[in-house]
Amino acid sequence: MFKSIVLPVALLGVAAHAVADEGQWQPHQLPQLKSELKRIGITIPAEKLADLSKHPMSAIVSLGGCSASFVSPDGLVVTNHHCGYGAIQRNSTPEKNYIVDGFLAKTRAEELPGGPNSLVYVTEKVENVTDRVLKDLGANMSGRERSETISSRIKALIAECESDKAYRCSVPAFHRGLEYYRIRQLMIRDVRLVYAPSDKIGNFGGDIDNYEWPRQTGDYTFLRAYVGKDGRPADPSPDNVPYKSKDFLVVSAEGLKNGDPILLAGYPGRTSRYKLPSEIRFARDVDYPAKVKTITADLDVIAAATKGNAAWEVRYASVAKSLNNVLKKTQGLLDGFARKDIAAIKDVQDAEFRAWYAKNGSGADLLGQLDTWIEMDMNLSRNEAAYAEATNSDLLKSARTLYRLALERQKPDAQRESGYQERDLSFIKARLTRLEQSFVPEVDQARWRASLTRWSAASPAMKDDATLRPAGLHAVMPKADSLDAFYKNTELADTAKRLAWIGKDVDAFRKSNDPFIQLAVRLNDATTKLEDARKDIDGNLDRTIPQYMAAVIAWKKSQGKPVYPDANSTLRVTYGTVSPYAPRDGLVKGPFTTVEGIVEKATDKDPFLVPAALTKAVQEKRYGVFKDPVLNTVPVNFLSSADTTGGNSGSAVMNKRGELVGLNFDSTYESITKDWYFDTAITRAIHVDIRYMLWVMKEVDGADNLLKEMTIKYPKK
Amino acid sequence: MFKSIVLPVALLGVAAHAVADEGQWQPHQLPQLKSELKRIGITIPAEKLADLSKHPMSAIVSLGGCSASFVSPDGLVVTNHHCGYGAIQRNSTPEKNYIVDGFLAKTRAEELPGGPNSLVYVTEKVENVTDRVLKDLGANMSGRERSETISSRIKALIAECESDKAYRCSVPAFHRGLEYYRIRQLMIRDVRLVYAPSDKIGNFGGDIDNYEWPRQTGDYTFLRAYVGKDGRPADPSPDNVPYKSKDFLVVSAEGLKNGDPILLAGYPGRTSRYKLPSEIRFARDVDYPAKVKTITADLDVIAAATKGNAAWEVRYASVAKSLNNVLKKTQGLLDGFARKDIAAIKDVQDAEFRAWYAKNGSGADLLGQLDTWIEMDMNLSRNEAAYAEATNSDLLKSARTLYRLALERQKPDAQRESGYQERDLSFIKARLTRLEQSFVPEVDQARWRASLTRWSAASPAMKDDATLRPAGLHAVMPKADSLDAFYKNTELADTAKRLAWIGKDVDAFRKSNDPFIQLAVRLNDATTKLEDARKDIDGNLDRTIPQYMAAVIAWKKSQGKPVYPDANSTLRVTYGTVSPYAPRDGLVKGPFTTVEGIVEKATDKDPFLVPAALTKAVQEKRYGVFKDPVLNTVPVNFLSSADTTGGNSGSAVMNKRGELVGLNFDSTYESITKDWYFDTAITRAIHVDIRYMLWVMKEVDGADNLLKEMTIKYPKK
Repeated sequence: MFKSIVLPVALLGVAAHAVADEGQWQPHQLPQLKSELKRIGITIPAEKLADLSKHPMSAIVSLGGCSASFVSPDGLVVTNHHCGYGAIQRNSTPEKNYIVDGFLAKTRAEELPGGPNSLVYVTEKVENVTDRVLKDLGANMSGRERSETISSRIKALIAECESDKAYRCSVPAFHRGLEYYRIRQLMIRDVRLVYAPSDKIGNFGGDIDNYEWPRQTGDYTFLRAYVGKDGRPADPSPDNVPYKSKDFLVVSAEGLKNGDPILLAGYPGRTSRYKLPSEIRFARDVDYPAKVKTITADLDVIAAATKGNAAWEVRYASVAKSLNNVLKKTQGLLDGFARKDIAAIKDVQDAEFRAWYAKNGSGADLLGQLDTWIEMDMNLSRNEAAYAEATNSDLLKSARTLYRLALERQKPDAQRESGYQERDLSFIKARLTRLEQSFVPEVDQARWRASLTRWSAASPAMKDDATLRPAGLHAVMPKADSLDAFYKNTELADTAKRLAWIGKDVDAFRKSNDPFIQLAVRLNDATTKLEDARKDIDGNLDRTIPQYMAAVIAWKKSQGKPVYPDANSTLRVTYGTVSPYAPRDGLVKGPFTTVEGIVEKATDKDPFLVPAALTKAVQEKRYGVFKDPVLNTVPVNFLSSADTTGGNSGSAVMNKRGELVGLNFDSTYESITKDWYFDTAITRAIHVDIRYMLWVMKEVDGADNLLKEMTIKYPKK
Repeated sequence: MFKSIVLPVALLGVAAHAVADEGQWQPHQLPQLKSELKRIGITIPAEKLADLSKHPMSAIVSLGGCSASFVSPDGLVVTNHHCGYGAIQRNSTPEKNYIVDGFLAKTRAEELPGGPNSLVYVTEKVENVTDRVLKDLGANMSGRERSETISSRIKALIAECESDKAYRCSVPAFHRGLEYYRIRQLMIRDVRLVYAPSDKIGNFGGDIDNYEWPRQTGDYTFLRAYVGKDGRPADPSPDNVPYKSKDFLVVSAEGLKNGDPILLAGYPGRTSRYKLPSEIRFARDVDYPAKVKTITADLDVIAAATKGNAAWEVRYASVAKSLNNVLKKTQGLLDGFARKDIAAIKDVQDAEFRAWYAKNGSGADLLGQLDTWIEMDMNLSRNEAAYAEATNSDLLKSARTLYRLALERQKPDAQRESGYQERDLSFIKARLTRLEQSFVPEVDQARWRASLTRWSAASPAMKDDATLRPAGLHAVMPKADSLDAFYKNTELADTAKRLAWIGKDVDAFRKSNDPFIQLAVRLNDATTKLEDARKDIDGNLDRTIPQYMAAVIAWKKSQGKPVYPDANSTLRVTYGTVSPYAPRDGLVKGPFTTVEGIVEKATDKDPFLVPAALTKAVQEKRYGVFKDPVLNTVPVNFLSSADTTGGNSGSAVMNKRGELVGLNFDSTYESITKDWYFDTAITRAIHVDIRYMLWVMKEVDGADNLLKEMTIKYPKK
């Protein structure tokens, strides 16, 4: 009904100083925020924070999808337990179950290989290459031409940057295509597992507590970067030596208290803060509800197909976990939209902007054009969703990847589609290999049958859109009840045979009798048509939206407000304060949980199992130097008002001096809508307190070697 | 697992000053607590609070089951909406639905009769009559003799006191029979409905929010006491005039803030704080689980029997509501016992006491005797529960009451069983009349059939206890499948015919063909045997427990601690502070909710409907002088650490100067175990803030006449 009334957050008089701080800033923007940083109490000069070659930013790294930081001069890296999970899992066996028991290398020799997916990226250079990407684009180019030209220039910029094979480069768009920066990252590819607590600590609360508060999760793991004896990145080898990190974070066991300022640095993945009201409504009314329906149905199919077969259940546990995570997030977005009418808030902002633009803008038709292209974009999205539904088989996806690779390899490397170049080969191979861990033919067939059925039942508009339909998709796709032959006659379920297709030429695919390969070949027209349509719309959007964003930035500038770009997996800095929030009238959450809360929540069932040693330490009140003077116990997790999103997992949480005081690992359920709109009253990120990590290392896991290796500032007695 | 660890309540640093205050004190005890009252900031002298003839205690009244207070010199009384509900309901019709629409008398002439159940009791005198009750009781009396002697002395004390018919007297036991006080109350029997907000305000949240926080319920109603022109209580009559209350509370619209001290005065019903560990275990392991099972089953039967018949559903709505309330409370007790091992805490206290008693006590065998009698008490309780299960029919209960009345009336009034004397007649009649509002023969039959079936299936021990079984109960009771004849052949379902049995003699009952009357007559032996067993055990307990309590009091006194008696529906004073609490690690509830929270919770369905005028006032931020300076809006409900229980509904919540700042109406779910053990960390009472009441009166209901009648201190601008 009238849900848009903002509740007073001063309920307890505690939240008055909780300044929630919107903004995922590019480091070079920080000097513009000097007075803000000072106001909340940050003492590191903004100029220093802006310099990637200087402490502390040079200690912040990416793991590709997660964030992390160096905490010793010998390449010791700290990140989330869920970010290091793959490395823990691949080293675990039923006999040596490091997931359940935890793992600690007491010496460097005992450190375990993290596997091909364990990578450390150190951002060394960020250059503005907007001119080189956008110069002299003909005004009359079609959308597709424009898109392909930009793509080709970006590939050239990357190739130039990657001439030194130690580096991985990218040229992401900022401000929806208004600016482009080239990011050069040292890619370290021998990364080893050093220490992980038991998942009873690292994943305490599991899926049940995901996105929830109160939270008591010790979501941390230590890795180490290794390089060749020459100090340069090298393939994994016993001969490699620890990477001498130029910089590392000092750890402060002094901790934080309610209201203290924090800095948070990492690699947020994606936000949609500058979308138009129409785009929000599409997400809210069409895209997300469809997603919830599809995922819910898919999860039901997986549950039914794996039921009673323990091995199959294990295979699909991580698939289900990841689908559940997306489902919870999507449902959280819908709940958030229902709670607060964000589209209406954006309407007001949009109207203000349009009024300003009518006076100050150039190109009267800009906003009209924008509306047109956005509508076409939304229509195409619907078709893309239908296509994904129709082709929801892991074997079919593998076949399509392999065939596409063959097609692209017919071209010179520079002209190949991004994602299918030589530089991408090792990633493709890793992905095709990894499938075996989470795949069972019978379950794949059940999922595909169900999704094909859903797709067939969908409105004809999805299948027969006059301008955009994937040509002949409905003619090409098999009937849902005819899939037995696919799984009976394919060899792609065998990893070795699947990988053997890498490098085969297009002709071999066309002649193959494998039903999935045949379907991938037949599907290609539809796929290409859909991709071309996407390129055309994106090219047109890319021509229009940056003009819009430029106008928005000018508008904000006229109000004295700097503008940060949407997250795009590049290094960002955000800041805020330790602070509770009021999710509802009369209820305050946070800002801290405590070790007593773990024991309180303990049951005899996963995910609420607690190591006996931890319970004992709590009962004996062995808090040591990690006891918080206000809480009178060891804090576990805390909330801050910093601006984070997916990708920020493992991000360093620093105090005002840039010392490590925690790791970011989640945000609260009420915060999920922050990807669209940052509501200062309720948006809170969830961090694991460094004092809890150090306490577990000392009292539970005996990781004295690491406590010694790190530089730790203990509180004065 | 390890749930007994106490969580730090300093989570936000806000709860540090939240001193939760155990104790429902007899007013005369307050001077012993002088320094405590001063410490929390109460400025009224303790001696003044101890004097029932002085302000503010002389303004505190009982409604019989609820508490209330005078707020004007013209007998204006304020209490809870749920306490005045009967008066609202009986004046409501489908055309003039005061429940839904609220009711406001703009003039005294418009005030509506509250009905026979609307009574105001003003406690005028409290005398210690322990000597007169207990003197010269022969040491060799049987338990039953002792019990009957005490009962007869109490009846004499009451009769003496009620020689002036304006008064109602009682002689309740304190400290489990160590002391007896005679309470003399002026009983005003013309009480009228003055003003009730809509139940959208007065019962906002309904059963769903019962015992819950956050809470936004405007649980208040105004009544007025009327007396004859001579100033003495009189039967309801248009000629009566408003009662000139000697005292009334001044209302303070200045409100309270977190940490402020409060005083709370009212008539708490019953607590069990001094029970022994064995008694707690019996409640936890036997009595409450059985109660939950029985009520759940009964509620299911009611739901099934009334389903699809709207009129029947309405008839049983209040029955179900009341059963649900008991169920929630009982389940809350069991949840609380599971959360915290109160029996173990009592074990420790009990062991300490026994150690002290071994050194300082007299009568070595006292504790052994006590254990014996308590065990017999628990066994008898089991039989009483079985008896109640077997006889769970409203018509059978009516028949038993009527037959018992006939039996008792054979004796001189003074010798009749308490509850069946002349002074009780009007109450019996009112109860037998009221049945028609919540009774349907078909539903009564279904309930009885089910409970008889449960009783038959219960363990034979219940039916055949060698020493205590209700003689022949199993031979007398009908089979569950033979009840049709009962309902077909009875006339008791007709109110007039039911009431006509009042005054008939025993012989008429014995000759009656009415199957319920017949069964009541046949049941009498079993009933009497059970009652005699109860008297015998109670007599023995009454001999032993007061000695135990005397020892406990001496033990506490040796530690410098005063001891308050368990609640027994007599006037008590408790104090505390406005304070939030931490039900779980990382979560803080309260202390205030706000009008914005009402709008936030609003739906288009009962019990979350909101009057449009209220929503509008909130949206327009018409807070007026009722705006709290910290919350920046109008507070609705708040929490305090005061010690309350059932019966405290409607109790005046006063500030340090004794001015009315709110009404007590509920407590939080986590507090329910307080009836057994007062856990300072989590026990909180829920109050409606006077500022919300005044704000609704002004902005929503336009009750200016009452705002004018009361003496209100507004905050300084």
